[in-house]
Amino acid sequence: MMAPPIHITLITLGVSDVQAAAAFYEKLGLTRAPSSQEAVVFFDMGGVALGLFGREPLAEDAGVPPEGDGFRAVTLAWNQRDEASVDDAIRRAVDAGGRLVKAAEKVFWGGYSGYFADPDGHLWEVAHNPFAPLREDGSMEL
Amino acid sequence: MMAPPIHITLITLGVSDVQAAAAFYEKLGLTRAPSSQEAVVFFDMGGVALGLFGREPLAEDAGVPPEGDGFRAVTLAWNQRDEASVDDAIRRAVDAGGRLVKAAEKVFWGGYSGYFADPDGHLWEVAHNPFAPLREDGSMEL
Repeated sequence: MMAPPIHITLITLGVSDVQAAAAFYEKLGLTRAPSSQEAVVFFDMGGVALGLFGREPLAEDAGVPPEGDGFRAVTLAWNQRDEASVDDAIRRAVDAGGRLVKAAEKVFWGGYSGYFADPDGHLWEVAHNPFAPLREDGSMEL
Repeated sequence: MMAPPIHITLITLGVSDVQAAAAFYEKLGLTRAPSSQEAVVFFDMGGVALGLFGREPLAEDAGVPPEGDGFRAVTLAWNQRDEASVDDAIRRAVDAGGRLVKAAEKVFWGGYSGYFADPDGHLWEVAHNPFAPLREDGSMEL
């Protein structure tokens, strides 16, 4: 029998204040899933879910020390259908309480890309990639 | 017009050796997308893509310092249809060169969950959640 391929069901971000982080993502247009609770909030993002959970309990759940600093070596990307939508999305994120990390610009691979950080410093790239069209559901052709 | 909800198109993991990291995920059953290159590898994981890129160029792309240590406050989850599949998936990850972080066990929220780290220390939870059934496509009902 073929081994099943990995499916990423959930991306969990460790945050300092779950409800404050949830408010940021709600301002960006997401709706809390019914299974959300005081200590953990889920958003269904179409095939993959985003979870917000305390940074310390997340470390505890994995059984690892909670200390950590600096670059996390993980970025989430939110691709857009055109360059203007990239600028709009970054503006919305900053209006919602995010931090502008890099204004969108033309990049070496032929696209247009910028970054914002959510209130806990998690990095989001917002990009338009003319070589990777978006499907109807917003996912990317690779 | 309603603002479009966020769609996570891509999760990029910063790694020390892109090809070695790609070999790990291939052993887990993933297939490189045709757009993969020497310096960046993509896997289509059904709606969301996983990218592997050098840790330093990833930081440079975002315009942030590459230094960072310890807990990254991000976990990826791979939900399974039953407990035995959780144990199988963790075993496969360890056989492929991952590190067992926490053997699967019954957890307080009523599920069964364990963690492995990929060769670059990125944390994956493997879980069965009896309250969040998986859809046909492997995504989770919230």
